[in-house]
Amino acid sequence: MNMLKVFGHTPPDTDTICAPIVYAWHLSQKMNTPAKAYRVGELNKETKFVLDYFGVEVPENLTEVTDEDKIVIIDTNNPEELIKGFDNAEIVEIIDHHKLVGGISTAQPIKITIRTYGCSATIVWQIMKGEGHEQIPTSMAGLLLSAILSDTLKFSSPTTTDADIESAKELALIADVNIDEYAKQMFDAKSNLDGYTPEEIVKIDSKVFDMGDNKVRVSVLETTNPDVALSMQSALEEAMKNIMNKDGLDGIYLFVVDIIKNESTLITSEAAEKEIAERAFGAKFEGDSRMKLSGVVSRKKQMVPNLEKTYTSN
Amino acid sequence: MNMLKVFGHTPPDTDTICAPIVYAWHLSQKMNTPAKAYRVGELNKETKFVLDYFGVEVPENLTEVTDEDKIVIIDTNNPEELIKGFDNAEIVEIIDHHKLVGGISTAQPIKITIRTYGCSATIVWQIMKGEGHEQIPTSMAGLLLSAILSDTLKFSSPTTTDADIESAKELALIADVNIDEYAKQMFDAKSNLDGYTPEEIVKIDSKVFDMGDNKVRVSVLETTNPDVALSMQSALEEAMKNIMNKDGLDGIYLFVVDIIKNESTLITSEAAEKEIAERAFGAKFEGDSRMKLSGVVSRKKQMVPNLEKTYTSN
Repeated sequence: MNMLKVFGHTPPDTDTICAPIVYAWHLSQKMNTPAKAYRVGELNKETKFVLDYFGVEVPENLTEVTDEDKIVIIDTNNPEELIKGFDNAEIVEIIDHHKLVGGISTAQPIKITIRTYGCSATIVWQIMKGEGHEQIPTSMAGLLLSAILSDTLKFSSPTTTDADIESAKELALIADVNIDEYAKQMFDAKSNLDGYTPEEIVKIDSKVFDMGDNKVRVSVLETTNPDVALSMQSALEEAMKNIMNKDGLDGIYLFVVDIIKNESTLITSEAAEKEIAERAFGAKFEGDSRMKLSGVVSRKKQMVPNLEKTYTSN
Repeated sequence: MNMLKVFGHTPPDTDTICAPIVYAWHLSQKMNTPAKAYRVGELNKETKFVLDYFGVEVPENLTEVTDEDKIVIIDTNNPEELIKGFDNAEIVEIIDHHKLVGGISTAQPIKITIRTYGCSATIVWQIMKGEGHEQIPTSMAGLLLSAILSDTLKFSSPTTTDADIESAKELALIADVNIDEYAKQMFDAKSNLDGYTPEEIVKIDSKVFDMGDNKVRVSVLETTNPDVALSMQSALEEAMKNIMNKDGLDGIYLFVVDIIKNESTLITSEAAEKEIAERAFGAKFEGDSRMKLSGVVSRKKQMVPNLEKTYTSN
């Protein structure tokens, strides 16, 4: 029998790696449904730290699925973020916490659980509990906890819900970690930019959106130490110009998010985008060509809706 | 504050009327979320019988929603079956058991629960239980039970799952009805065609599908007494021709489903469609221009997939 392939979006982040690992474990161990988790792309340093900390193997990389595959998609419902061939495979389940993009259709009814939580791992944990399986190994609890802390920036993102906080507390007890201490180590790992090229930094956590007729890339760099990235501003702006040309984009924005101060600094390369950003966020680019945005940390709830409104009101 | 509007597909059937009534009751009474159920279109005789039996008022008819409405959609995710203006309204939740059509997108994350059960009411009941509210009035249990019996043809449809059967048994206890006796009354009510024109009969339970480049209407007439409909065959075929022209369809099929014998009789008007149906189901139209299909009772699992395969392999 064909083993279910469980994976998330590309490029991957901590939620889209950890939630599939735990859900594949749950399906295989508790639900009598053989399943295996994969990554689609390179892990970021935060995710590597998390897997290493809990002694969990890095999932195998998947580059394509075919009409022989049965797949479970976690943490996205956006065709643009999905693996090559996803629309040939048989999608059997989707778990997600993003807005409905509307680009996926299926030949048969499938199981879909989308919730307005801050993290897919919270949904996975609720499903597992709902199915009566809350006895899980330390490592599995640790991965779900890490995903929640990562996606909610330790509960400071406006996407955070009570369900995320409650789940994280339950999971921290099972995983036997102190949330504050553990989150600090995780965020420090994420903030380490050693060995990345400027283009790679811009793409560590980056998504492309259709805004009206425009293709816009919104990159986020979450860090406990924004000065490292900001000291490379001109190299990053150069990299953004290159990406824009290569990908045929109509706009590209990089938000350097200070996890500690709960604020972001926006940099962008072109005058046209600066003007759009100023209208979108009602703030100004300063002499250093940066825009400080207090409290703006969520791509989903803040960055994209504001940019989208501005692009589509043109 | 704006009351949530809860409704399903048009034209309505028993599931798409009863599940919203019960879910709106649950949201209002148990979840502190004011909500009201509506119908979108005329009730069929089965649904009228159900509401009358349990003393529940017929929901108000809704013909359009606007950008001031917040809506909950139950029992469909198909834009073609939705009320006018749905894409202007704020969709806050979708509960469904049909395949993902892919035509709905949202500006924000919303709650979506799609399961592969035989009925939306089964999902509503699971959600209510999951939220710790299984104490419900007789009438609300009766409506959910009726929806399950209707959609699963009293568990004989291949769409039926264990979850539907278990839920129906729990609900029958609360509603204090004998399933066999009650289902018989319900199906007899549904089988009464008095006062319907032939066109209305064809459209009592009818959906339009895109199959490849073709627009195809698949009508189902579930009855305990197929002879009544089959004795009007030529009038029904005439009506189908008219609907086909009016709606600009590429095909139209009417399956008269014998609920007791668990079989259907297919009638269709044009030679081209007869040929397609013969290829789709591997059976022949007999001298009376009817095709008998033993065990074929589900539009979702049997009629549409077979027709779709034939249309798209052209």
